[in-house]
Amino acid sequence: MSDVKKVVLAYSGGLDTSVILKWLQDTYQCEVVTFTADLGQGEELEPARQKALKFGIKPENIYIDDVREEFVRDFVFPMFRANALYEGEYLLGTSIARPLIAKRLIEIARETKADAISHGATGKGNDQVRFELGAYALMPEVKVIAPWREWDLLSREKLMAYAEANGIEVDMKHKNGGAPYSMDANLLHISFEGRHLEDPKAEAEESMWRWTVSPEAAPDAAEFVDLEFEHGDVVAINGVRLKAHEVLAKLNELGGKHGIGRLDLVENRYVGMKSRGCYETPGGTILLKAHRGIESITLDREVAHLKDDLMPRYASLVYNGYWWAPERVALQTLIDHTQKNVNGWVRVKLYKGSVSVVSRDSKDTLFDQTIATFDDDGGAYNQADAGGFIKLNALRLRIAGKKGR
Amino acid sequence: MSDVKKVVLAYSGGLDTSVILKWLQDTYQCEVVTFTADLGQGEELEPARQKALKFGIKPENIYIDDVREEFVRDFVFPMFRANALYEGEYLLGTSIARPLIAKRLIEIARETKADAISHGATGKGNDQVRFELGAYALMPEVKVIAPWREWDLLSREKLMAYAEANGIEVDMKHKNGGAPYSMDANLLHISFEGRHLEDPKAEAEESMWRWTVSPEAAPDAAEFVDLEFEHGDVVAINGVRLKAHEVLAKLNELGGKHGIGRLDLVENRYVGMKSRGCYETPGGTILLKAHRGIESITLDREVAHLKDDLMPRYASLVYNGYWWAPERVALQTLIDHTQKNVNGWVRVKLYKGSVSVVSRDSKDTLFDQTIATFDDDGGAYNQADAGGFIKLNALRLRIAGKKGR
Amino acid sequence: MSDVKKVVLAYSGGLDTSVILKWLQDTYQCEVVTFTADLGQGEELEPARQKALKFGIKPENIYIDDVREEFVRDFVFPMFRANALYEGEYLLGTSIARPLIAKRLIEIARETKADAISHGATGKGNDQVRFELGAYALMPEVKVIAPWREWDLLSREKLMAYAEANGIEVDMKHKNGGAPYSMDANLLHISFEGRHLEDPKAEAEESMWRWTVSPEAAPDAAEFVDLEFEHGDVVAINGVRLKAHEVLAKLNELGGKHGIGRLDLVENRYVGMKSRGCYETPGGTILLKAHRGIESITLDREVAHLKDDLMPRYASLVYNGYWWAPERVALQTLIDHTQKNVNGWVRVKLYKGSVSVVSRDSKDTLFDQTIATFDDDGGAYNQADAGGFIKLNALRLRIAGKKGR
Amino acid sequence: MSDVKKVVLAYSGGLDTSVILKWLQDTYQCEVVTFTADLGQGEELEPARQKALKFGIKPENIYIDDVREEFVRDFVFPMFRANALYEGEYLLGTSIARPLIAKRLIEIARETKADAISHGATGKGNDQVRFELGAYALMPEVKVIAPWREWDLLSREKLMAYAEANGIEVDMKHKNGGAPYSMDANLLHISFEGRHLEDPKAEAEESMWRWTVSPEAAPDAAEFVDLEFEHGDVVAINGVRLKAHEVLAKLNELGGKHGIGRLDLVENRYVGMKSRGCYETPGGTILLKAHRGIESITLDREVAHLKDDLMPRYASLVYNGYWWAPERVALQTLIDHTQKNVNGWVRVKLYKGSVSVVSRDSKDTLFDQTIATFDDDGGAYNQADAGGFIKLNALRLRIAGKKGR
Repeated sequence: MSDVKKVVLAYSGGLDTSVILKWLQDTYQCEVVTFTADLGQGEELEPARQKALKFGIKPENIYIDDVREEFVRDFVFPMFRANALYEGEYLLGTSIARPLIAKRLIEIARETKADAISHGATGKGNDQVRFELGAYALMPEVKVIAPWREWDLLSREKLMAYAEANGIEVDMKHKNGGAPYSMDANLLHISFEGRHLEDPKAEAEESMWRWTVSPEAAPDAAEFVDLEFEHGDVVAINGVRLKAHEVLAKLNELGGKHGIGRLDLVENRYVGMKSRGCYETPGGTILLKAHRGIESITLDREVAHLKDDLMPRYASLVYNGYWWAPERVALQTLIDHTQKNVNGWVRVKLYKGSVSVVSRDSKDTLFDQTIATFDDDGGAYNQADAGGFIKLNALRLRIAGKKGR
Repeated sequence: MSDVKKVVLAYSGGLDTSVILKWLQDTYQCEVVTFTADLGQGEELEPARQKALKFGIKPENIYIDDVREEFVRDFVFPMFRANALYEGEYLLGTSIARPLIAKRLIEIARETKADAISHGATGKGNDQVRFELGAYALMPEVKVIAPWREWDLLSREKLMAYAEANGIEVDMKHKNGGAPYSMDANLLHISFEGRHLEDPKAEAEESMWRWTVSPEAAPDAAEFVDLEFEHGDVVAINGVRLKAHEVLAKLNELGGKHGIGRLDLVENRYVGMKSRGCYETPGGTILLKAHRGIESITLDREVAHLKDDLMPRYASLVYNGYWWAPERVALQTLIDHTQKNVNGWVRVKLYKGSVSVVSRDSKDTLFDQTIATFDDDGGAYNQADAGGFIKLNALRLRIAGKKGR
Repeated sequence: MSDVKKVVLAYSGGLDTSVILKWLQDTYQCEVVTFTADLGQGEELEPARQKALKFGIKPENIYIDDVREEFVRDFVFPMFRANALYEGEYLLGTSIARPLIAKRLIEIARETKADAISHGATGKGNDQVRFELGAYALMPEVKVIAPWREWDLLSREKLMAYAEANGIEVDMKHKNGGAPYSMDANLLHISFEGRHLEDPKAEAEESMWRWTVSPEAAPDAAEFVDLEFEHGDVVAINGVRLKAHEVLAKLNELGGKHGIGRLDLVENRYVGMKSRGCYETPGGTILLKAHRGIESITLDREVAHLKDDLMPRYASLVYNGYWWAPERVALQTLIDHTQKNVNGWVRVKLYKGSVSVVSRDSKDTLFDQTIATFDDDGGAYNQADAGGFIKLNALRLRIAGKKGR
Repeated sequence: MSDVKKVVLAYSGGLDTSVILKWLQDTYQCEVVTFTADLGQGEELEPARQKALKFGIKPENIYIDDVREEFVRDFVFPMFRANALYEGEYLLGTSIARPLIAKRLIEIARETKADAISHGATGKGNDQVRFELGAYALMPEVKVIAPWREWDLLSREKLMAYAEANGIEVDMKHKNGGAPYSMDANLLHISFEGRHLEDPKAEAEESMWRWTVSPEAAPDAAEFVDLEFEHGDVVAINGVRLKAHEVLAKLNELGGKHGIGRLDLVENRYVGMKSRGCYETPGGTILLKAHRGIESITLDREVAHLKDDLMPRYASLVYNGYWWAPERVALQTLIDHTQKNVNGWVRVKLYKGSVSVVSRDSKDTLFDQTIATFDDDGGAYNQADAGGFIKLNALRLRIAGKKGR
């Protein structure tokens, strides 16, 4: 066990990280700094301060930050410029919040002259990797304490026993019923894992979902929404200019109301196992669809295809925790460069669980109606050119064919 | 103008290809063989025979083939094994039928000793490329006549004037109203282009759609459907074993009933322009979702990622007409190899325009519940391993960090 | 034939482009502007001026520019930052000069208010594509006259007959002997095609090569050269700071002396045929080797691998003439971004046809000797970490193995 | 420390693995099975048997196998079909032998009912990963003992002290002088790491190299060699049909004589550090060059480019130890498929350190001289086609240009 003087803990105020706080104090005999972030998860953060104080944390060592704008502006939006989908489906809601938390943990470590950070992610999941790769990249000499990989409180029963033995409040829902879902929430999504979801055959219960109504319960009338883009980011909804985090909050509200953005998935974790997750990403689901819509008229074909070819790699980097790695930054440089002319607006239709693009326009459009028309184009396009185009594209095929290949 | 003796024409029996038939006879003074394919487009084909006979086509030169099973088994299903989506959204419904038509045109050319083929695709679109690349690959010396690139009947008015002057029947819908949508249909989809869709800003009219009810008009109750896969292909629906084309027909029926599979899109054509298209792909939309579902538990992570990385390239090859090119065949070899263990079943929920996977299972599953569990796993996974895993993955980042990078 | 008022011709002063000059005047009855570029091909350019004057070209319409520095700084060096090799071997010597010529043709067209450009590339090759894609990208409305695709002077005999009939000087080497090699030269390389090289079986004659001595004739003693890099470009040789074009000229001298950079190759042209080419790229061969050497210690592994993965695509874009296309620019943005820390020096050994890196160092090195050592590293690296690293990387393989896959 | 009953050790007979053998017996109190492979490394293997016997290994537990043919046929040749180069330069000589050793270790473990394997690779290198990933993939439940990650003999001094204390013979070269190079040899290459090579600035000593003469000492006359390919593999040299391992041995002899195949490199290890290595790969260097030569006339362009795009990924998989992973197998399926027509012969010139292709031919050639010729082609290729080809490829660039992009 390494010698630690001061550790910054990613502290939610919940049961698990409260146990960790106590365990760190007891096990490492070190000073603890708590960091609690408002990522838009929709929970009160002040109770975390009160709890921290009860553990004897010094007031100046309690950090509670509203990072919602930074989160959406510097992490969520850049990722959506890439149209990132992990394994064809997952919008990376948890993945994208971790590098921001890692960054703040390290910033606070530098401010408070701490030599270590700690987090509540288990040894089986992706989040430990995301936290720690970020931390190591930003502060190579930092020590990392991952209690779940160290202690012996590996069952929920042991954890609660430890809590009670140490006077840590366990609320009712933990005491009764079995284990809760393992959940994570921020402005981009809320996720559910564990319990009966551990069987990919078992259907999710309707009562599990939190942010979206069921499509069946959504309004019977569709709603149309206009999204305005600048350089690939949404800057206004229905004509109202908004900050980045307000954009996402508004889209969540709209999507949630219409039952949009539920996903039930088996994914491949970086640590090598498959895992079942259910996600609600109402705003993100709308955003991806709309972003593809505005790109469809403003991006050059080959640039769009280059982005599509690189997208799975980019998504894997984010999923695997390499946000702060130079290869992600290099890809982002390319992606951001492509968004210069991704300006204009898209109208989407929201209805009972689905979102569709119905209209789009841009001053920077590359759509050329005079050429695309089925009517007489007055010579804008010479159809005879296509003969030569096809002939030369076919040449290698014809040569091979003549050789009997 | 090249010297042509006998030409095989892809003949639908409609106005455009009837004009072409007559124009070929007049312009090339050559014998015409007609080929009319039942791809499941849902139209009567026998009228095409009657019309051909009226143009003086010899009975033995009239080919009307039911190719539905071949179409789905040898073209649609192999493509879905790749999870192919062009530009992130388009299911390639038109693209995938063209290589089959090209193949039959050439087979018939060889049978009838014809030296040329002809088709009704315009000089602006992708279909000319798909027909001709296929034809050249399969019969390098074939002559190709693409009337739309040769003649001067470039407006609908001139075309109809030619039709009337030559006694070709023009039905009412063509006479009245303006130009119709440019449409294409087969078992996989029906597409719409042209008219007011030429403005990407203009919303599609509800009356345009043919195969799907509007989500608003779909049943108020969701429907759950079980799809069984063998080697990546659906072989049974709700326990009933079906042929390939029956599978797709059934999925179309189910999807259409629930308003599933509409898409409104601006895409990039191979010939260099952007174009607006609307598509209905009810069965294909269900199929893609379900195929990803069964792959999620049966494919190795890195194999799945390899497929995801190659998918846009594969989709572009199909879109651009390179089905019969050796690079598509090489990719297919890899893709088919990966599907050996893609067996099992997926349950999907269909409801008012959306399809979601709610359950999946397989005897070949790679999902290992004993490892993935949040409960005590009895040592199946050693959490401490993750420390070393992260440390070495972070090593290059830490070294760079120490150098101030 | 389109109506052309003034055309800018890429004019070398040689037989072919002199015939073209005359043919343009006769055929299009238009004013001709000549552009002759010094790309370091090692030929006198003033004779081109005299010849142009003899054809009646106005003095202000004769452009003779030294573009060597621009060529190496803005085209060759950026390409070498990507380690570009077409089809694993070709250093793209001809390809990279064409976009610069296209750019100057268009700049001159704008200055002289010309409406057309013309060039001497044949209809079978890549160069026509490179010239014209560049021209169209930079001036979409420009007219392009490609005489080899229009006229009937398709054999060397007809060309010389036309020359003699029009008083165009044909020098001795053309009169006697058969057709010469088709050659192209600039500071990066000299190329040879045609004649007996058209048979891939036929060995090249020693007498063909121009810039390099045969390895057999090279000095018996090796020479060691130090190259200093800044941001991926060579800025000094053996401690002497040089301009970009001086760097390449010096490397050509050194490489040529030691028989370095000959290549005999069958390549795939963009127009669909295979073609045999022989190339001498003495300086470029050294440059590529050295650039990989400096990158090997200054680039992060994953950034280097990302570059390697994208390299063939970048090389194909350059080969195919897409220098001025947005996808090349997007890739360049990424590549240039990666070169920020590619600083330091490399020592190469030149000897009888081969170049090898023997030493390299950088203040920005990521090579960490304390970690890499086989000796006791004092805990810089914890070997036990590798156990967990391997265990988790193996996890998916072990799960599959247990399922009998 | 896990409970081990019988362990199969990859045993070279050298000092390190002899120490390991003894250490395994002492530490695990388990039965040891030794496996010594003849991979063509050029060392006597019978001494390994004698040494094993001296350690008390039962005769039936001593495996000494000649795996040279399997090595070249099933590992080296398939890899060369991919033109694999790691980081643009390294021919993967060590990497490709490890999966074969892993396979044999596991086969022997199954035969002898052993529950563990062990090897002498350190915790810093790639080889531990390659051995263990292979072992886990082929026998998921196997225990792996990696002494270098477990014991405290981390310096050469401690190792030799242990050897002497246990009566293990230490030969003179180890006793005197400092640490030797860390070397690895098999039919494909011999590698050198460590000692003063740990400084990337330090030049390698001429005396280090073993398999190749220095280019300076190579014959003054070039040698020409004909290689015949079937399905991408060399089957005959200068008309003499040879087995796979004989081919490589012969090429090594030829290359070594002419000073071919030396490489001095800094590479990126999978475990996250950079490392300096020197390699001699005489035969492999010739083989790669020749294989690209035969592919240049027999592979379709797009198939060749697909292979080039996938090559770095394939090479990384081999380098990182994923030979037995399903994604390598999937890629191999594609690669092998492409080699069907890679038949014919290539003539290479060997001279003082360099190898070049001077001639190539194939009955399956796709080189079409009638089309490629600079002479009149009699209409085989219609140059006018190129106009349309360029026009349509330029269309998107022109549309963008008109929009001022």
